[in-house]
Amino acid sequence: METQEALVYIAGTSCTPQPTSHSLTAESDENEFMAYMVRKSKSVNKALDEAVPLGEPVLKIREAMRYTLLSDGKRVRPMLCLAACELVGGHESTAMPSACAVEMIHASSIILDDLPCMDDDSFRRGRPTNHKVFGEDMAVLASIALLSLAVKQTSSSTNVPPERLLRAVQVMAQAVGTEGLVGGQAEDLAGEGMSFEENDEAGLEHLEFIHIHKTAALLEAAVVVGAIMGGGSDEEIERLRKYARCIGLMFQVVDDVLDVTKSSEELGKTAGKDVMAGKLTYPKVMGVEKSREYAERLNREAREHLRGFDSDKAAPLLFLADYIVKRQN
Amino acid sequence: METQEALVYIAGTSCTPQPTSHSLTAESDENEFMAYMVRKSKSVNKALDEAVPLGEPVLKIREAMRYTLLSDGKRVRPMLCLAACELVGGHESTAMPSACAVEMIHASSIILDDLPCMDDDSFRRGRPTNHKVFGEDMAVLASIALLSLAVKQTSSSTNVPPERLLRAVQVMAQAVGTEGLVGGQAEDLAGEGMSFEENDEAGLEHLEFIHIHKTAALLEAAVVVGAIMGGGSDEEIERLRKYARCIGLMFQVVDDVLDVTKSSEELGKTAGKDVMAGKLTYPKVMGVEKSREYAERLNREAREHLRGFDSDKAAPLLFLADYIVKRQN
Repeated sequence: METQEALVYIAGTSCTPQPTSHSLTAESDENEFMAYMVRKSKSVNKALDEAVPLGEPVLKIREAMRYTLLSDGKRVRPMLCLAACELVGGHESTAMPSACAVEMIHASSIILDDLPCMDDDSFRRGRPTNHKVFGEDMAVLASIALLSLAVKQTSSSTNVPPERLLRAVQVMAQAVGTEGLVGGQAEDLAGEGMSFEENDEAGLEHLEFIHIHKTAALLEAAVVVGAIMGGGSDEEIERLRKYARCIGLMFQVVDDVLDVTKSSEELGKTAGKDVMAGKLTYPKVMGVEKSREYAERLNREAREHLRGFDSDKAAPLLFLADYIVKRQN
Repeated sequence: METQEALVYIAGTSCTPQPTSHSLTAESDENEFMAYMVRKSKSVNKALDEAVPLGEPVLKIREAMRYTLLSDGKRVRPMLCLAACELVGGHESTAMPSACAVEMIHASSIILDDLPCMDDDSFRRGRPTNHKVFGEDMAVLASIALLSLAVKQTSSSTNVPPERLLRAVQVMAQAVGTEGLVGGQAEDLAGEGMSFEENDEAGLEHLEFIHIHKTAALLEAAVVVGAIMGGGSDEEIERLRKYARCIGLMFQVVDDVLDVTKSSEELGKTAGKDVMAGKLTYPKVMGVEKSREYAERLNREAREHLRGFDSDKAAPLLFLADYIVKRQN
């Protein structure tokens, strides 16, 4: 967000017209997209910071929530939520509480994934994981608190008809439960140690199930909730859901490829960990080259689903898809 | 629910007219109340069973969810929810999804409380705890899945205006997060090993904070959500909230007293555990006798808050308060 615009957002006045967040067009270049990313992530970080104030006296539970929620991150999920809202004609501020809620759900799942009883990770992005700093008990509580806050934030968004808020809450609850994150993680745990050959059909099916639930469901929820908040039609929401499903899977394919092709330092986390843990990954099932091709195909498919929208207005979501497929860590 | 209706609800047919659930009046005796409890808990158990079907193929995550959710229990929270709904003029079926949701939140919190990183309990009501049967990883996932399902159930209740559903979702999210269960548990963990004298003011304050959040918040949410679903006025909801706050605290006082006065066998869980863990309890802060008197005072206060309602219609909530204060395990 440009400073003038940020001031409007904060103070309610402005004199000089400035490029808006919509200034990204189909003709924009990568630099303009990066500037857009910086603006958006600043707005998101500010809103996240305000959503979980430390309070007085400082409570350990709030410190634990903030530790993971406000840690470095690209804020891809909130950005998808805001971009979908704006694409269907809504204002950024309308979707901001739910964009933050999606990031809270993401942070909550990260805390749980890292627990000793799950992936048992001590570091993430070069920092000790939540339970290493606050203890397992507090980490679990922080995770639950973030989930509750996500529901509270979304259901309390102002200036949005209650029907939309309810629908958004339902989509989020579904993305977390057995049809989402939990279902994917449970299947992942159940499948550890299973052996599949390259190009194994059963392996691919199992893998897609896990990732559609574990990764894609929340990315999909981010986009769908943004579109709901922005007042999108059922048909628009459906098209955006399909776009989101593609980039959700793509996100995981790229993640798996990076795990086998990058060093730990480049990744900011332990490289090759999935392979060592005997986990199913796309490179394991279809090889690195075909995984890359698959990611490219998903990107093309995602773009197809955005065809019905004005190409300038769809620019942020098109750029975000490219960004996900090209990312290096 | 009329018995005719109740029997239809349970078995599908009925011939003989029976006393109805509304037949509980201010003049009813304890036997009639026990019959009421049996009828209500049957309806609740049936609804809980349907809310988490095992599915085909049977998924371990669903087994884990059902293991705790459908275990023996008095269903006090759902009953409070249904009774509050009926008191303000609503029908039992209107509040049934949210009554189940409250029980799901309760089950979720039990699973987490028993984890090795929390209270580290291996048995509850004579059965191995969830993580002992399904593993810690699956137990954590089941807990999250139950929370999500609670939100989904409540937000999807049919025949209720969206404004009410949203308000109910907000109340539940608040009862779970830092202002509820999580906040109480975090304070409890922070206070372990703190030493307080009998009649210690600071100790009592700390204790009330924990229990208002850890126990009373969900009992309060059960009642308030029931009243919201039933279409209660703000004034009715507020009176019921005060009633619920009293019985919430009372519930914990009675629990603490039982922990020091009953054997493990009578309780179905390890007796004296709170004392051994150095946890603050009411008997520890004010002694057993004064704790009992305090529970009685809270019961009288709870009854006061129901004065504005028709005494026959309020009978279930009055009986439930008595039941809580007199319970033996």
